[in-house]
Amino acid sequence: MNTPIPVIHYGLGPIGQAIGRTVAEEPRLVSVGAVDIDPHLQHHKLHEICDAELPELPIVGSLADVKAPEGAVVLQATVSRLSQARDQLMEAIARGYNVVSTCEELVWPWDDQPDLARELDEAARKGGVTLLGVGVNPGMVMDTLPALVARITSGVDAVYVARYVDVLERRIPLQEKMGLTKDPAWVQERLDRGQIGHVGLGASLQMLAAGLGWSLDVISIESEPIVATETLESGLGFIEPGLCKGIRQKAIGYIAGVPRITLELIMEAGVAGGGRDETIIDGDQALHMHLTGVHGDKATAALIVNQALHVQQMPPGLQTMLSAPLLPRRGQE
Amino acid sequence: MNTPIPVIHYGLGPIGQAIGRTVAEEPRLVSVGAVDIDPHLQHHKLHEICDAELPELPIVGSLADVKAPEGAVVLQATVSRLSQARDQLMEAIARGYNVVSTCEELVWPWDDQPDLARELDEAARKGGVTLLGVGVNPGMVMDTLPALVARITSGVDAVYVARYVDVLERRIPLQEKMGLTKDPAWVQERLDRGQIGHVGLGASLQMLAAGLGWSLDVISIESEPIVATETLESGLGFIEPGLCKGIRQKAIGYIAGVPRITLELIMEAGVAGGGRDETIIDGDQALHMHLTGVHGDKATAALIVNQALHVQQMPPGLQTMLSAPLLPRRGQE
Repeated sequence: MNTPIPVIHYGLGPIGQAIGRTVAEEPRLVSVGAVDIDPHLQHHKLHEICDAELPELPIVGSLADVKAPEGAVVLQATVSRLSQARDQLMEAIARGYNVVSTCEELVWPWDDQPDLARELDEAARKGGVTLLGVGVNPGMVMDTLPALVARITSGVDAVYVARYVDVLERRIPLQEKMGLTKDPAWVQERLDRGQIGHVGLGASLQMLAAGLGWSLDVISIESEPIVATETLESGLGFIEPGLCKGIRQKAIGYIAGVPRITLELIMEAGVAGGGRDETIIDGDQALHMHLTGVHGDKATAALIVNQALHVQQMPPGLQTMLSAPLLPRRGQE
Repeated sequence: MNTPIPVIHYGLGPIGQAIGRTVAEEPRLVSVGAVDIDPHLQHHKLHEICDAELPELPIVGSLADVKAPEGAVVLQATVSRLSQARDQLMEAIARGYNVVSTCEELVWPWDDQPDLARELDEAARKGGVTLLGVGVNPGMVMDTLPALVARITSGVDAVYVARYVDVLERRIPLQEKMGLTKDPAWVQERLDRGQIGHVGLGASLQMLAAGLGWSLDVISIESEPIVATETLESGLGFIEPGLCKGIRQKAIGYIAGVPRITLELIMEAGVAGGGRDETIIDGDQALHMHLTGVHGDKATAALIVNQALHVQQMPPGLQTMLSAPLLPRRGQE
């Protein structure tokens, strides 16, 4: 076996901990550093926080306090917003580290934040390192995977992707973000202000459009609470009828007035029919993909770790899951 | 819109004709040449043979008789065996053309024919052009797509992929290749000699293993006729009970004695449950993908045409669907 790839854990909240547990099971990676800005976490060791067989590394407050070789891979699991991730990414680049990140807005920043994307791309290329944002959503089931499946048919008229998530199977902070047990009007107000809900459905829409070679004229994104009609038990207590049991988001991309891509994200307590991912591609062939078993947090941790195995071999710069090959060309490994 | 990409049709049998019809519907491509070694086809024009709105191009006997700009994309649909495709590929490289090919053995030649693969890779890199083999199978549903889906989970123990094809929906030559209406013993004998059956299940197995980062110790591939139990009507006449109604192929890849990848290809007249692709990934998450609507010939034509849109932007050399990104990196288009 080759020498394991050194990785630095950056961000040790619930997702960072799940990444830690996944790294512990992956012999091709070795943890060499752990960072979190939360001073409370800095009293603990990496293996304690993750409850996993990992090296006994102190959790430090900054990348500057980590000793790792150039080319090490930072596993960033800190923030959803690219503006907040920027300084951490620039510091990683300056230290010669590659980055695989859960930052939702890094997955496809080219349409919403092109200046920031270009800045990071140029810095990474100059530094000879690669940045890659990935997650289950955005990053895989509603964009990369449908874009690959769409290559199977010609004459694509429309693409419909729906992801159904049972939030009862997910961590409590996510159940809070989905407004569980709250008054629907309260939830709608915060959805409208962008204070709760899922980050990244618009990014998935734009990423999928790019993968299809389409330029969308108009994008609409709507979010609404899903109201319970019977009492449900959740990680936040009972959800009485009339209260919020989840959130439905719908993003539609139009070309010349015609809806061409529709993404629907249904995240609710006790989703009817069970959690699943549906992709319908309406082209010369009518393709229908039905995928079950994708668990959001576990899947994001797995994608981060699996891409960490490959990021050193990708061409430098800001890559996306559309530009990142699954493997390097033979002879180029 | 940008200038359309010039393409050269090489091989105008049933698949080549399907590719022609697909190119006719794709405004981003323009046909500039047509080649087939069959003298009978050379009496016809491209648009006649394909029965499609294509330029009225003569079908010539050799690439040497085509006038096309450097960088044009050859759509090769001639042979299944790489040894037979080699000279055509080398000539395309010598003329500065990129190639997207249906040649099954080009899809993943790195394990079975590494010397030939390296020769083509070096020649293509030297010539600054890209070669890519693709098809629905091998090339997509039993290798590339499962390899991408497997990135969603960690701890993959085993992968099972099954493709069910109703050959009654497919062209007659394929029904012949599947031994329809023949005596099962006659079919088994020819299967054992490799004279009939599907080419490329072993390539899919090796390609998927590479995508998973696995080295297989042992590979077993078995093929057997499927015997009709009731009378069926086929493109080759009635299939009486006791005669062959299709072929089942099974490829298993082992690591340390443990079966880790199982691929099953069931191609029969009137497949029970309908044509479909099933992928089961047994890891920390239990993923199950069910895909319907993939029509082998149409899908291969679509994949060739869709990849022809991107092959000029891939790094030169012999690429595979695992090394070929869906899109170039932004700023590199």
